[in-house]
Amino acid sequence: MENKITIGLFGFGTVGQGLAGVLQRVENNKAEIKRICVKNADKPRTLPQEFFTVNPDDIFNDSKINLIVEVIDDDKAAYGIVTKALNKGLSVVSGNKKMLAYHLPELIELQQKTGAALLYDASACGSIPVIRNLEEYYDNDLLISVKGILNGSSNFILSKIFNENMRYDTALKMAQDLGFAESNPSFDVDGFDSLFKLVIITVHAFGEYVNPDKLLNFGISNMSENDIRFAIEKSRRIKLVGQVEKLSNDQITLFVLPQLISKDKYIYSVEDEFNGVVIKGEFYYKQFMFGQGAGSKPTGSAVLSDITARYHNYRYEYKKRNRIRKFHYTEDHIIRIYLRYENEDDLSLFNFQQITERYASDSYKYVVGNINLKDIIKIKDELHKRNLFLAAYPHN
Amino acid sequence: MENKITIGLFGFGTVGQGLAGVLQRVENNKAEIKRICVKNADKPRTLPQEFFTVNPDDIFNDSKINLIVEVIDDDKAAYGIVTKALNKGLSVVSGNKKMLAYHLPELIELQQKTGAALLYDASACGSIPVIRNLEEYYDNDLLISVKGILNGSSNFILSKIFNENMRYDTALKMAQDLGFAESNPSFDVDGFDSLFKLVIITVHAFGEYVNPDKLLNFGISNMSENDIRFAIEKSRRIKLVGQVEKLSNDQITLFVLPQLISKDKYIYSVEDEFNGVVIKGEFYYKQFMFGQGAGSKPTGSAVLSDITARYHNYRYEYKKRNRIRKFHYTEDHIIRIYLRYENEDDLSLFNFQQITERYASDSYKYVVGNINLKDIIKIKDELHKRNLFLAAYPHN
Repeated sequence: MENKITIGLFGFGTVGQGLAGVLQRVENNKAEIKRICVKNADKPRTLPQEFFTVNPDDIFNDSKINLIVEVIDDDKAAYGIVTKALNKGLSVVSGNKKMLAYHLPELIELQQKTGAALLYDASACGSIPVIRNLEEYYDNDLLISVKGILNGSSNFILSKIFNENMRYDTALKMAQDLGFAESNPSFDVDGFDSLFKLVIITVHAFGEYVNPDKLLNFGISNMSENDIRFAIEKSRRIKLVGQVEKLSNDQITLFVLPQLISKDKYIYSVEDEFNGVVIKGEFYYKQFMFGQGAGSKPTGSAVLSDITARYHNYRYEYKKRNRIRKFHYTEDHIIRIYLRYENEDDLSLFNFQQITERYASDSYKYVVGNINLKDIIKIKDELHKRNLFLAAYPHN
Repeated sequence: MENKITIGLFGFGTVGQGLAGVLQRVENNKAEIKRICVKNADKPRTLPQEFFTVNPDDIFNDSKINLIVEVIDDDKAAYGIVTKALNKGLSVVSGNKKMLAYHLPELIELQQKTGAALLYDASACGSIPVIRNLEEYYDNDLLISVKGILNGSSNFILSKIFNENMRYDTALKMAQDLGFAESNPSFDVDGFDSLFKLVIITVHAFGEYVNPDKLLNFGISNMSENDIRFAIEKSRRIKLVGQVEKLSNDQITLFVLPQLISKDKYIYSVEDEFNGVVIKGEFYYKQFMFGQGAGSKPTGSAVLSDITARYHNYRYEYKKRNRIRKFHYTEDHIIRIYLRYENEDDLSLFNFQQITERYASDSYKYVVGNINLKDIIKIKDELHKRNLFLAAYPHN
């Protein structure tokens, strides 16, 4: 490209406004917003009225526009916009993790077919350049795992609970007021947002795509005072963690679970709305990347990084997808979990291989034990219907 | 390039051997070492004898070789190798920070003239992809500062002193035995290594090159029990920090100094041979990157990342050098320092603007006060001749 980027923007919520703010601030502007497509024409806006339209074609038919930036909430509408743009040979920057997590293989093919590029570093971990680094810098077979706090909103809530004894509901409300939370809180606190990001990260880390519906995600909305006390007694904190790990030369496994994290782990100290990702490799041991993962301006500046990357014609090559010996997802993997449950019927759902710790009183019952991931996935839909909480409980 | 990389390697010390080890481990090999030029033909080697030569021309005249990797200690010899290669149109991967720090402007020009590329991510912070991220991801005007622990060896020593009460000499010896330290310890502990890395980082962060000789660097070799006690009493740790900071829209300042770092700072917790870099920006607040900065295999894997980047034809564009309003280095900047000195004559060297804390006993004298960086640079050569220790002492 290397000539000025003229943007057709879809969506003017938290991220869209953040982007506009960041673009105004940047000198030597390589990019400007020409038109913004929104759902509601009548809302008061921070930019002059002539920028706005409710008709997507005002953007698609504008021959001056050479980049589509899509930062809307609705994943189905986002899918329509992205595929339409790519099919027209227009490159796209997208922040829609749900849409990406469900459609990546098709969108990769579409890029190859049309030559247009799709960038989405902003979709995973906001301002931390995780995808770009996995794609470019960790472009070899030495990668062992990627593990991280991928959702700023739930981490904000957990921080308030663990550091300030705040109640869950108060903390959630505060996250929403500060603009960290998605419009549907379940998206954040039940681990869906983390899961979608993990699916995207896995494509760039190991070249393997797995449909989110096949994977285990469980969040923090069921967490109780007892679970918090258990963590503190063990000198750990509960963090909502997404992780993908190489198990052998052709197998990886991935899941999103609350985890009991010990003090000596980097992610133990990731607080508030921050995200932190630990990249582990055979020779470089561990690398830790840390930054603001949510919020208007940090995400806006991440979108800006994707935009300037397009200015330099950057595109993802999906290098790991071309690996000769491919990685495949397996759900056959033993993990140790902490399970707080209400009655024996709940407990009997879980096909533990071994129970190593057991506690029961009238008001609080838990077990710690080893269980196969596939046996949790089998009962995934049941988990959310019951008053129980589970967390991965790594040995160190 | 996109066809197999055939490497002519100069140097087979810690990093060279690390690289060979890493390359052996990697599957789907895109790169192999064809010939290795060493100083001493007779040393026992871990690879077959036919790999080795003492004649550089055996590499330069081998038409199969399409990439020079230079990982020797001697900066003058490195300069000769790199310029010869670039002039022949051969691309180079180099890890020699001293050579780079003194010759970057010329080497940038040479790349532009010949079309050959020079990559050196491995030269700054080993396995952490700092340069590549500054160049590609933080490609905008939002950057405020880059601050970090850039030298693994001195940080290892400081960690042993602060965490294990080890003596300085014992810790230094240990660092050397573990292969973290450069052959000349002053390079590490007096802040030269950090300074060279900072000069390189600054080119990619702000587009400005400053000759290392113009800059202030002071290290930890003069640190005493009293200085350590002072830090602990203030609930801080001494870390050797390199930092470059934007002061205005066209001014930056940079220096390497021991710093008294408080607990809530990310780099407070960077221990042992690890490096940690905090990238601060206007909208993304702070990003922290952390990883192994020294040692054979981590650095070897960083060199490998540069090699595979060449496989994909990657080159630095030096984008920030093309900024319309250029940044210029200024040494006119007030900082607060802690100064431990022996006698009034030492103290009178320092042109303090204000002294805010003063202590004197027979065995230990110090002041805390504000001083202009340029007034320290004036007496730079004098500092090392006297029994004194200074450290930046930020207000928070």
